Amino acid sequence: MDCNSVGLVKPQTFNFGSTDNPLVLESGHLLGPVDIVFETYGAPNADRSNAILILHALSGNHHAAGYNDPHDRQTGWWDGMIGPGKPFDTNRFWVICSNIIGGCKGSTGPTSIDPLTGAPYGLNFPIVTIGDMVEAQKRLVDHLGISRLYSMAGGSMGGFQVLEWALRFPDMVRSAICIASAARLSAQAIAFNSIGRSAIIRDPEWKEGQYNGKGPEQGLAMARMIGHITYLSEMLLDVKFGRRLQSANRFSYNFTSEFAIESYLNYKGSTFTQRFDANSYLYITKAMDYFDLSRAYGPLKQAFARIKARCLFVSYSSDWLFPTLQTKEMVRALLSNGKPVSFIEVDSPFGHDAFLLEEEKLGRIVSGFLTGVGKEVEA
Amino acid sequence: MDCNSVGLVKPQTFNFGSTDNPLVLESGHLLGPVDIVFETYGAPNADRSNAILILHALSGNHHAAGYNDPHDRQTGWWDGMIGPGKPFDTNRFWVICSNIIGGCKGSTGPTSIDPLTGAPYGLNFPIVTIGDMVEAQKRLVDHLGISRLYSMAGGSMGGFQVLEWALRFPDMVRSAICIASAARLSAQAIAFNSIGRSAIIRDPEWKEGQYNGKGPEQGLAMARMIGHITYLSEMLLDVKFGRRLQSANRFSYNFTSEFAIESYLNYKGSTFTQRFDANSYLYITKAMDYFDLSRAYGPLKQAFARIKARCLFVSYSSDWLFPTLQTKEMVRALLSNGKPVSFIEVDSPFGHDAFLLEEEKLGRIVSGFLTGVGKEVEA
Repeated sequence: MDCNSVGLVKPQTFNFGSTDNPLVLESGHLLGPVDIVFETYGAPNADRSNAILILHALSGNHHAAGYNDPHDRQTGWWDGMIGPGKPFDTNRFWVICSNIIGGCKGSTGPTSIDPLTGAPYGLNFPIVTIGDMVEAQKRLVDHLGISRLYSMAGGSMGGFQVLEWALRFPDMVRSAICIASAARLSAQAIAFNSIGRSAIIRDPEWKEGQYNGKGPEQGLAMARMIGHITYLSEMLLDVKFGRRLQSANRFSYNFTSEFAIESYLNYKGSTFTQRFDANSYLYITKAMDYFDLSRAYGPLKQAFARIKARCLFVSYSSDWLFPTLQTKEMVRALLSNGKPVSFIEVDSPFGHDAFLLEEEKLGRIVSGFLTGVGKEVEA
Repeated sequence: MDCNSVGLVKPQTFNFGSTDNPLVLESGHLLGPVDIVFETYGAPNADRSNAILILHALSGNHHAAGYNDPHDRQTGWWDGMIGPGKPFDTNRFWVICSNIIGGCKGSTGPTSIDPLTGAPYGLNFPIVTIGDMVEAQKRLVDHLGISRLYSMAGGSMGGFQVLEWALRFPDMVRSAICIASAARLSAQAIAFNSIGRSAIIRDPEWKEGQYNGKGPEQGLAMARMIGHITYLSEMLLDVKFGRRLQSANRFSYNFTSEFAIESYLNYKGSTFTQRFDANSYLYITKAMDYFDLSRAYGPLKQAFARIKARCLFVSYSSDWLFPTLQTKEMVRALLSNGKPVSFIEVDSPFGHDAFLLEEEKLGRIVSGFLTGVGKEVEA
């Protein structure tokens, strides 16, 4: 085991809204009881002013670092970023990663039991928004006795949550790190999400969302395959796969998946179905499509006037799903409000997934930023 | 009716290989009898040296200009380019557009009757390549008494055919116009095609390709939707649709297609199923994936040494499916062989579909090029 690992971690569950004070969703629906599954790394200081909240992306979860079991062969999804001496340094910070509502990793979502029926919600689960996810996280942060977060960080949809936090609860966010993200999805990104949902909904095994067991595996695999292409750059695919055939040098002259890129996508699609729920995929991508800071808070310049956090934005040169242009739009809006903002475009061939793959580059940037935030507090 | 229209046109059919001399496909299979459906516009000159062959793309067909019926509300797919006084000027040229084999518009393909069984081929149709399509066109061109084509032109997969012609039959191609195309598909483009095929193959209505009637409409619509995103630029989608909702200003908070871009893609997907066969979609995209000039003829510089045609390459600035980089690679290979080559990147927001949509810009380029070819002949 990596000696800089946070080691064994046990997920915890926070429950609220079972008897009163349910979550009032943006749609107007009430949601309760609500479970929030989360992990913490490091320890709180005396006044709990050293907490950093990590927000995960579409297919992520609360298990961001370390191991849940001594036999685990894989660590949490951001293990290179979180641990003693790492960028989110658990010797200094109390790092918390919470699982979003609507997902399928323990927090309340469509696979949870609907108290009204005693059966899984399925499509009776209400639509949740990024704002609703953040409201639920706010309950957790309150429960943990944190009045102001030292920082928060997230990539992609995690970045949406960072932005929503900074705008919705400006007094609770001292600094914010928004990576490979945007103030809203482009029409193209909505289109890819929508086609992914269509693949699930058109799969006869979906059964209007009331499937039992395996469910629409074919549709979910398709959705993941489509998504996966958008996470990687064209150049990376050419370098990694090119036109290489999987197992022979001769064409098969049939419709088997013979190019290496095809096998790779099939593999990514089918493994995803083993770890993700199709209805959750519908709910989470819909939340992404709905996210639009300007719709909720007005034009960006006006919206960002309320931000009190010191912000860091990171984008990646080959990310075509969340291109740098969209990050620059946010940086400009903060600058025009005279807000402190740091921005860097990282040169990377890895496309959108760079925020998960380029940990060393990102780590240096995050370390410097967090140190700067600390100095500002001391000054 | 446009006074520069070629007017009413009747498709013709050329049949070969019914008793002997079938097509020997690259896979080694024999194909015969073979029907080739084609249209001609303008008239041949005395020595038939004024023929221009038009090659169509994935979802195109032989009906490139004019009307097939006086009541037709739509003209052929390149009507702005072909006609009296138009870039492919039918006052000067004898323009021929032939339907590819493997398609579903009359030329022999998977919907045709298999003479061995008396039933439609379905998946018993052999895999055809771009080279096989060109071999079939060569039979047509021979049949029409043309020893050398004045020019040929095609966009996207039509460009593949142009390149294959110029390499396979260099003495028969006086000039060649290759638009929004490449010497091979990128891994990303193969991935999109492959996912489209998966959508069809995973549709239970596909029935291993032996469907009757409607067939895998859901899968084919999905494939078209995926393809359609790749044909347009991100910027165009943002300008044309952005985050606009289709029919209300309030979110529906359910999984209906509420963004305008979603409705548009659904429309494009479902109308496509009314005019295209799912098996043909499999065969044609597979032919595209297999196309690779370097595999057949060696590295580009070596391959292009055999070209005798004067070449024009056109790419579009916002085409991310066939980016300009891929065209430049071919232009460099021709230049390094000392071949005459013209190249222009057209500034356009329309993405890959620009070759169909930006007729005025393309028209000026093509007119000039064809005139230049004529002068060269006279000189």
